[in-house]
Parts: sequence; C-alpha cells; structure tokens
Amino acid sequence: MSQRTTHTLLVTAMVFAAGLSPAAQADEGMWTTFNFPKAAVKQKYNVDINEAWLQRVQRATTRLEGGCTGSFISKDGMVLTNHHCVVECLADLSSKDDDLLGKGFHARQRSEEKKCPTEMISVLMETENVTDKVNAATAGLDDAKANTIRKQTLSRLEAECTAASKKSPHGALACESVNLYQGGQYHLYKYKRYDDVRLVFAPHEAIAAFGGDPDNFNFPRWCLDFSLLRVYENGKPARTPNHLPWRAEGPAANEPVFVVGHPGNTNRLYTVAQLQFQRDTSVPAYVIRNTEYRGRLIQWSKTGDEPARISQDPLLHVENSLKVYRGFQRALLDDALFDAKRKQEDQLRAAGGAAKAWTDIDNAETRYREIYDRYLYLESGVGFSSKLFTYARQLVRGAAERGKPNEQRLREYAESNLPKIEGNLLASTPIHNDFEEMSLSFSLDKLREILGPDDPVVRQLLGSESPDSLATKLVGGSKLADPALRKTLWEGGASAVAASSDPMIVLAREIDTTARGLRKIYEDEVQAPIASGQERIAKARFAALGTNIYPDANFTLRVSYGAVEGWNEKGEDVVPFTSLARLYERTTGKDPFALPQAWLDARSKLDPQTPFNYTTTNDIVGGNSGSPVVDAKGRVVGLAFDGNIHSIAGSYWYDERKNRAVAVHPRIIIAALRDVYGATSIANEILGAGKGTE
Amino acid sequence: MSQRTTHTLLVTAMVFAAGLSPAAQADEGMWTTFNFPKAAVKQKYNVDINEAWLQRVQRATTRLEGGCTGSFISKDGMVLTNHHCVVECLADLSSKDDDLLGKGFHARQRSEEKKCPTEMISVLMETENVTDKVNAATAGLDDAKANTIRKQTLSRLEAECTAASKKSPHGALACESVNLYQGGQYHLYKYKRYDDVRLVFAPHEAIAAFGGDPDNFNFPRWCLDFSLLRVYENGKPARTPNHLPWRAEGPAANEPVFVVGHPGNTNRLYTVAQLQFQRDTSVPAYVIRNTEYRGRLIQWSKTGDEPARISQDPLLHVENSLKVYRGFQRALLDDALFDAKRKQEDQLRAAGGAAKAWTDIDNAETRYREIYDRYLYLESGVGFSSKLFTYARQLVRGAAERGKPNEQRLREYAESNLPKIEGNLLASTPIHNDFEEMSLSFSLDKLREILGPDDPVVRQLLGSESPDSLATKLVGGSKLADPALRKTLWEGGASAVAASSDPMIVLAREIDTTARGLRKIYEDEVQAPIASGQERIAKARFAALGTNIYPDANFTLRVSYGAVEGWNEKGEDVVPFTSLARLYERTTGKDPFALPQAWLDARSKLDPQTPFNYTTTNDIVGGNSGSPVVDAKGRVVGLAFDGNIHSIAGSYWYDERKNRAVAVHPRIIIAALRDVYGATSIANEILGAGKGTE
Repeated sequence: MSQRTTHTLLVTAMVFAAGLSPAAQADEGMWTTFNFPKAAVKQKYNVDINEAWLQRVQRATTRLEGGCTGSFISKDGMVLTNHHCVVECLADLSSKDDDLLGKGFHARQRSEEKKCPTEMISVLMETENVTDKVNAATAGLDDAKANTIRKQTLSRLEAECTAASKKSPHGALACESVNLYQGGQYHLYKYKRYDDVRLVFAPHEAIAAFGGDPDNFNFPRWCLDFSLLRVYENGKPARTPNHLPWRAEGPAANEPVFVVGHPGNTNRLYTVAQLQFQRDTSVPAYVIRNTEYRGRLIQWSKTGDEPARISQDPLLHVENSLKVYRGFQRALLDDALFDAKRKQEDQLRAAGGAAKAWTDIDNAETRYREIYDRYLYLESGVGFSSKLFTYARQLVRGAAERGKPNEQRLREYAESNLPKIEGNLLASTPIHNDFEEMSLSFSLDKLREILGPDDPVVRQLLGSESPDSLATKLVGGSKLADPALRKTLWEGGASAVAASSDPMIVLAREIDTTARGLRKIYEDEVQAPIASGQERIAKARFAALGTNIYPDANFTLRVSYGAVEGWNEKGEDVVPFTSLARLYERTTGKDPFALPQAWLDARSKLDPQTPFNYTTTNDIVGGNSGSPVVDAKGRVVGLAFDGNIHSIAGSYWYDERKNRAVAVHPRIIIAALRDVYGATSIANEILGAGKGTE
Repeated sequence: MSQRTTHTLLVTAMVFAAGLSPAAQADEGMWTTFNFPKAAVKQKYNVDINEAWLQRVQRATTRLEGGCTGSFISKDGMVLTNHHCVVECLADLSSKDDDLLGKGFHARQRSEEKKCPTEMISVLMETENVTDKVNAATAGLDDAKANTIRKQTLSRLEAECTAASKKSPHGALACESVNLYQGGQYHLYKYKRYDDVRLVFAPHEAIAAFGGDPDNFNFPRWCLDFSLLRVYENGKPARTPNHLPWRAEGPAANEPVFVVGHPGNTNRLYTVAQLQFQRDTSVPAYVIRNTEYRGRLIQWSKTGDEPARISQDPLLHVENSLKVYRGFQRALLDDALFDAKRKQEDQLRAAGGAAKAWTDIDNAETRYREIYDRYLYLESGVGFSSKLFTYARQLVRGAAERGKPNEQRLREYAESNLPKIEGNLLASTPIHNDFEEMSLSFSLDKLREILGPDDPVVRQLLGSESPDSLATKLVGGSKLADPALRKTLWEGGASAVAASSDPMIVLAREIDTTARGLRKIYEDEVQAPIASGQERIAKARFAALGTNIYPDANFTLRVSYGAVEGWNEKGEDVVPFTSLARLYERTTGKDPFALPQAWLDARSKLDPQTPFNYTTTNDIVGGNSGSPVVDAKGRVVGLAFDGNIHSIAGSYWYDERKNRAVAVHPRIIIAALRDVYGATSIANEILGAGKGTE
C-alpha cells in the first residue's frame, strides 16, 4: 500500500549510531548499482554480487513514472508490480457500470489487454557522471546565480544526451539529470521509455488491499498486492530478454535477499534546520490539510454509489500518505533524532571546510517559513485541487515556457520533461464534475483559511463568492474535460491560451504573476542557498567519510540488501511469514475485511499453508512499491509492497532492529492466478520464465 | 468565539523571562480575588483596587456551567454573556422550521423568555481554604493510596459544606473543592446556583460570528458576540442587587481595565515531561482526530438543509477547538519554551526539597503513553461520539455509583456533581438520528484505526459489523432519545439498568469493566504520582518564590488586569478599536461574510463611527468567554469574547508584547438592540442599571 513515492537525508546508520566511523553492519542503505557495497554483503551474508548481476537486475527493473517500481518477468514484456500502483489506471478504465478497481481485471488473451491512459514505464540503461561539468559551470557564482546556471546546465546536458542517444545501441533514450548526495554528485541517467503500457491482470481490490487503511503499514498481513502489466512497442508486446526468472517456492527464513527499485525520497542527509522545518511547518501543514480532506472525501463517498466508486482511488492515496506523514511527525518529535543529528553536524563542522553552510541553510529555512503558505497554495497549486485546474496550469505555463529556449524554461517544461506532461495532459481520462467541485471547494476553503480572508489574492479570487459557489462556477463552466480541446490549446500555444475564456484558464492566468513571483523568491532565496550549502556539506562529508556511503533516495535506481526476518515488537517475536489459513479466519464480511466471493468459493481448492506475505530487513521506502525481491541468483522471490510501521521513520534513519519491508510471496501469486482466477496462461507465462527461455 | 473552556502551566512571566526573581511588570496572571496583586496594579496603573471592589465584581460575575462566564447587568437577573455561549441553548430550542441560531431570538416581553434546557448558572459567594485538612488526610500515604484518600476527603468536605450552607445567610450553596497551584492549596468554593435560566436576546449568528472560522482568533474583527439571559427563582426573575452598572461610552484607549471570569485551563506550571506528553501525544491526537471529524461534518452539512442547520453548533465547537489546539501545537514546537522550562526546573531543583518529583512525573507520563489510546477511546468515551451513548454511560455508571457511599464513588458521581448530571440527562433536548449515526460511525472508525482491528475490544465490539453498520444498529435501535425513558432508568437504578436491552445501554455495560480497568490504571499509576509530584513541586515553589504568584486557570473565578491596547504585528501597529463602517465594506454577501438583511436595512440609522470590537492586554483564556470587562469603578465597559492568535500560547506562557484579549464594545451592543433589533426595553433595562437602581 505504502511504497509509492511520497516525500523524504543521508545518514548512514553507522554515522548515526557511532559518530563518523564507517563500519557497516546493519542492512542499511539504498545503494546505487555503481557504488554497491559488495564487500559488506560478502562479509555479512557470504554472497558474491558481481557487476553482471547488478547490470542484469538493473535492466530488468522498471520505473513506473506514476511513482512505483516494476520488473520484467517474461520475455514478452510482462511487468510485475503492485496492485496499488495500477489503481489510477484501473480507475481511469472504469465507469459507472464497470468497476475494474472493485472487481479486478483479467485479460484472457493479449488482445484483451487494455492500455493504461497515462502510464509510462522507464528502464535505466546507462548512467554518466557529470559532476565536473556542473561544478565548472557554477564555480565562483553567488548562490542565486549558481542555482540558475546549474539548472540551465542540467537542461542543456539532458538535451545533448538525448540527442546523442539516438545513435546508441539501445536506440533513443530519455536523459534525466540526477543529483546524488545533496549536490555531492551529478549524473545523467539514460532511460529506455515505454509509453504503451497495458493492463494484463489485477485481482479484486478487496484482496489486494485486504485490511485497508487499518492494516496498512502493519504486519502480520494478508494483501495480494500485485498486478501485471505489459509494455508494447509498435503495437506488439515488447521483447524483454533481460527479465527476471521466477523462483516459485519463494525464499527461506533468514535467506539473504535484495530489493531493486526506485525508492522515492529519504531525508537522512538533511540538516537540523531542514528537519525542524519539516517538524514545525511542512509536515503538520500536510497532515492537517489532508486529514480534513480525508474526512470530506469519506463523507462524500457515502452520498451514493458513484461517489463511493469514484472516491476509492483518491481515498487510498490520501489515507496512505497520511499514515506516512503521521509517521514522519512521530519520528520528528523524537528529540534523540535531533540530538544525534546535532552531534553529527558538530563533528562534520569540526572536521572543517563548510562551517557557514549550516547557518546558510538555517537562514534559508527561516525565509522559507515566511513564504511557505503562499508558495504552497498559489505556486504549488494546493489551493486549487482539481484535475481541470492542473490542465489549465499546464496549458498556460506550457504555452509561455515552450516559447522560450530550452535552457531558459522552468525545469518542469524542459524538453526532457515534455513527454511526461503531454502524456497526462492529452490522455483521455474521466473527469467527475461532482468530485472536482468537492475537491476544489475544499482547497479554496483552505486557501482562504490559511492565507486569511484579507489576503489580496484571496480577495481577488473569491470576491463575493464562497468556496462552494466559486468551485461550482469554475468546474461547471470549464470545457477542459475534453481532451480534444486540451490538444487544441496545447498545440495552439500562447495565442490560443491567451484567447481562451475558459474559466479555469482564466484562473490559471490570473494567479500566474503572483505564483511566479513566489517561485522566484523560493528559487533565489530558499532553494539557492540550500543547494549551495548542501554542496559544501557534501564535500566536507566526502572528505571526512570517503564515498563509501549511500545517497538519499530520490526515485532513482537503488539496490538494498537484507534477509527474510521478523522482528521483536514490545517483547513479542513477530514471525516473518503469514499464510492463507489466517486470512479466512480474519474476514468479517464487511469492508475492509471482506473477501470477494471468488475467494470464498476457491477456499477448498487452496492449500491453507500457502505463504502469503513476509518481512525482510531491506532498507526501502515509498517508490519501492512493486520492486522485485530477488535472491542471490537474481530470481524473483517476492514483490515488495509495504513496510511495517517502523519503516516510516526510515525517511530519517534506518533502525535495523525494527524497520522491515513487507512483500507478497510468489506462491500466493501463482495460487491465486491458477485456483482463484483461472488465469492459467498468465501463470504459465510467469513460470515459463523460470525455465530459462533465452 | 474562542473563550469557552477547552483544555491548558503556572509560570509567572517574571519567572519565565528572568529566572526566579518575582518582579511583576507584565499584565500577567489570572488572579484569585483573595490574592489579587493590588500593589502591582497601583504601581503600574495608579488604580486602587480594594476588597469591596473585589467582592462586588465577584458576586456580579456568573459561571455558566457549560464552560463560560457571564455577569449580572440588571437588578432583575439579566445576564450578559457571549452569543457563542448560548449556541447550544439556541440549537436545543430550534427545530426544522424555527432556526433560532440563524435568525436570533428576541423576547419582546418577559413572558416570551425561553428556558434553556440544560443551562445552569453559578455565583461564587464564599471560599474556604482546606489545605491543612487535605494534607493531614494524606500524610504519609503512598501515592496511589494518597490519591484515593484525597478524593474521598474532598467528596466528604464538599458534602459537609453543602449541608452546613443550608443555614448560611445566602441559603443553600453548592460546594466544590478546588485545587490551586497544582496541589499547593485546596479550597472549597461555595456557589449560589440558578437552574432556571431563560433566553432573553440573541442576535443573528451571522453578525455574532461575522467572519466565522476564518476570522476566529484574528483581529481586526467585527463580531457582535453577545447574548442576554435571565436567571429565575421560583418562576420569577431573580433579584440581583449585585449587578454591574453599564458605562455606555466604553473605555478610552490605554485605559486600565479588568476582566473578571472563569478562565478554563492553563498549563503554565506543567513540567517538561507533562509538556512533552502534550506535544508528542495528546495534542497531535486531538488535532488529527478532530480535523478529520471537521471534514466529515462539513461534508455532511452539505447533504441538505436540515444537516446544514443541525451542523452549525457542533461545527462552531470543533472549528474553535481546532484553532486552539493547532495553536497549542505551534506553541509546543517552540524549543525556547522547553529550554526556559528546563532552566526553571533546574533552578527549583537546585533550591532543593523536591528533586525526585520531576522524575516521578516523567515516569508517570511514560506510563500514560502506554495506555493513552485505550484510556481515551474506551474510558473517556472518544470512541463513542454520540449523545445517546453519553446518556447510556451516565445511566449505567450512575446506577452503579449511586449505590455506593458518597466518598467511595467515582468523583463525577459524588453528591455535589449529581445536579449537573441530572440537568443534562433528564432535559428534553433534540436528538438527530442522522447526526448521531454520522458522528458515532466516525468515532467507531477511529477506535478501530487507533486501537487496531485486532484489539480484543475492537473485535468484541465490531464483530462482523463495520463502523457504519454498527452505528446504524445502535442509534436506530436505541430509545434513549426519550427523556421519560431516561428518567425511568435513572430513578430505577441498578435493577432497571440491568434489565434494559436498549442497545446503547448494552454497549455501555459491555465495555464498562474494561473501561473501569483503564480508569484504575490511570488513577493509580498516572494521576497519583503526578498529583504527588506536583504537590512536592508546589511546596518547593512556595518556598522559593513565596505565595505572591497566581495559580493555573481551572474554571474558577479570577481577575486579570491590563489596558486597552493594540500590538505590533510584523512591524505594523494594530490599532485596538474597530468601527462599524468597515463591517459594511467587508461583507461579501456569502457566508461567513454575509450580513443579515436587518443589518443591511438598518445601515442608514447607524453611526458608522460606532466602535465595534477592541483589544486589551488582559491575560485571559478559554472559559473567560462572556466575562465582563470592567473599569476601575467596576462598571461594564465591554464583553470579552476572544483573544488574538497569540493568546493561544497563553496556555503555556503570557507574552505581553502580543497576547491580546478581544471584547465587544458597549456602544455597538446598545446600537444593535435599539436600531437593528427594535429591542428598546431591553436596552433600557441595561442602561437603567447605569442609573444606580439600588
């Protein structure tokens, strides 16, 4: 449930627990393939991980651009990921009379596989270290100027890389710049992209997310949180020789396992000032805003069958995020975290070279506090929670930005990012006006509450309207639900957008100057000094610790190592495996503990001893959702989908005693496909891979 | 809006700012009448406050047992309080076709005055220091035993006092024990009680709470937050010779003023461990739970006119509480607060005598954390948010407790408290089943979320039900909405309650053993060591500082002093008065900035320069709502109804630079009565008091 990217410092636990001496024992770290701690793994688990193994798992692992991971598990492009990673696709393909989220999906033959309207899948083919080029470009500049030039340089390097890739053996690649170690290193990551992604199989949501929000981030657990996609090229299933073989019996207790994927975000390298900003400002604001939204959404979902159906996807999302953020809040209220962090900063500061960096970051956070609410509500768009507004913002900004040279644009409109924007903007996905009105009215209400009714922008926007009446006018009056109109406006550019009287476009235009003003303050006065301070701290850290450390997660490819293990919870041992029998005992018949009829019917056919979910010591975080758990031989032995409740503090530090990843066992996946869903050919395709088809 | 009691350290700002030297300069403190700092007031404001003045304002000030203050302003029992203090009365007297909250209420003659079903008003006549008696009773006992004996002693002293009062010159009085200075002193407070309280006048809610939640705790402000009640005795208006005269022109800028009332709760004497418990545990839990509830309630209110009407009172309450608790959260995240507090504790500890007390409290808070969720949801009843459940709990516990000798009972069922319980339980007030179901379903959902679906009580309660289906069964099946049935069960006692199959009674019975078990752990292992530790710290503090300090607020009578002043907000001076003209400029026509038609119609008759609201430096807190602001001559010059946003941190410390009380000006009250509402005789009754009718 939880491991989609949400927000997230690099501290190695070693640094954390024992000052600055690097002596890795914990299964800590989300490591890059080019800096994987082979020796530590050999020492602890007696497993040899070589370059071939790393390259194989790298190219078999996929990034789902919506915020998840997947892996190729057949030669014909089949991708294994979580059910909760395809929820948006299922919702987009559903209608009033055909609820794919509720009832699941099973393509009995390839011609029945349905394209996910906005899904895009990427595979990391190569990386290139461009640290020297970036540092050369910004040398000697003041913080704000360096920040601007850094972005321009990255946009230029990306564009040059993408152009050059056309001659590469892999064909055209999409190049994205990646900042590792908080400005310690810059890389270009080169991805092969698949934008024709089709749904192959999804179980009922009731079994995929059995236990719902109450069980989310908890263990023992019984979630069949898997789904299957397939990537297509030129209308045909893509050839994916780099897929992972399937180890049907799964892993043994205590066996060493590896999780390969795209962890979204950790903050283990954050400074005290950055953590305080989270503790005091951004995290509480997030929790409060979204908790109220959760309440509104739940109550709205009870107003009818359609609201109930439409609310499923956003509710899963908001409840999962809230559990994460409330976990952040608890973690940040642990004074020991701050004490350890202060000690660490004192040590690095004493080591010399960057003393002023911490003060600069502290000052930048103070400035951020001053503008945070307005930045969040007006520039980040939190005040306008509506798909239609998101379209309008992209059309208005897209027209303005595309009229500029690539390097001069806001980074999200650089050439390298346009395919993602277009993939969302031009896709045909359902818009539910009632939902849009509910959500927009809520966000306008919060805009007024947080900025205050006398804020000039609030007065300008609301005038004599209430949040409800304005939301109704905007949603009711906008025609942007029509993808053809969006295409016309996107292609028509600045003149077409300027001529539009669509009320959402008008709104996006009206706030644009104020919003861009806030963005400029943020970039020059907050982001720039932080980036500069972080670069200096990164250098000091490399000088003190060497590079045998891992960078914070940032939704780029990482490998973590660990073993299948439970943990001790308040004196009680939690065993690492659950099995099917207890699922049947635990059902109540009522959501979220209801079993689909097909599962009740299949009970006698299923082995009650079938392992269901299990826990490992791997260090993972949101974005690892859908990651393959692989054994020392590179075979799939599970599917990561969550962490236990202690894993949430993993954004700030790794606690080997308690932090556990949670995975779906391969046996329950095959049993479900064969004996519950009658999906024999799909099961065979998965198992076929195990027989070495290439 | 804000100043009804919600939850809250005694630190005098002097102690806070400057270590332990008592040199009062700030307008700080909520002082008892028997320890009022006359010399400090004389020194700072050149005003002589004598015993006669103090006794006069004491006996003219009323406590509204619902959580507010009021004052007698005519010889015939008329009570001035806030509109937001009579919201529950207005809601109880409203129906689908007669919305008194929305349209206000005006009794054109005394026969039209309507009894508030559950209101009870108290006037403090006398106090008696019983510290020595209590200390003698508990001397030498271990903490848990002392805690039990202390309660028994207080119940006994209350009962003896009440019995003895029958011979007093004031007639029968209700005696309540009061703990001051966290166990430093115990007193008996003796109240004259009025249980026939009738509504005289209330303006439209739209003007009483103009600006709604967005403006709440903000200033400048335009809220006509006043209402008028009248106390009756033997069916006739009570004679109240101790009323306050009215000073129609109000106060001058910088004039010294006094607020007399019942501030609910401050935590200025709390230890670091107690504050950490609030910061990390209780306050976040409160905010998160009630923020979601707010969202549910708002969305539910949009489902129809009746839900909209029924939601008004609970929504005002929850939004106000949330602003307070979010303010607490901000205040508690200020590391300077903890640093100052730690320093202070170190100083007191160094002064000697109580070193172990802080550790004992710290350990008790640790224990509290372990049981907090279950205690809150099961014993405090947060898991069963329903008026019907509250009735059921009172019936079940009331029957069991009244069967015991007075001193052996849970304190809330001691003889001295039964009139309040009966006042609520037996009153005829509306129950809205749809609302009950919404609210109960929410709280059951949270019960399951917080305790977890595998908690034995959760499994026992929910079985195969969902929160929705269980709430429907409980509310739909209960007959406790009928006051006659409640009376029968109350009077029938243990056997009647045991025989009842009402599902709410059954529920209350089923959880009672578990809930009482938690109560016992709380009282013996949390409350007892805290009470003991606090008593020891109180003695150490008296030894170090003397008794020239004020106790934390606890909804008992206090007098604060200050002056009419604005403050400086981020470099801008905020002037202390608002006037009517800007109200008309600020209306948008849409809730919560809409003006009632009567106000639009009356605009030409009103002087646009009429002062509306104003700020003072008085140190007040929730529970002071409805307090008279009086001048040096004891005349009413305003009506406290709120504080500015900085006042919320007043629970933990008083910041003279920024903490301001907000009051309604007397001129706008009279202008509204005469020129908007045509309530001339009421205006005359108020002004008559100014002419010295006794």
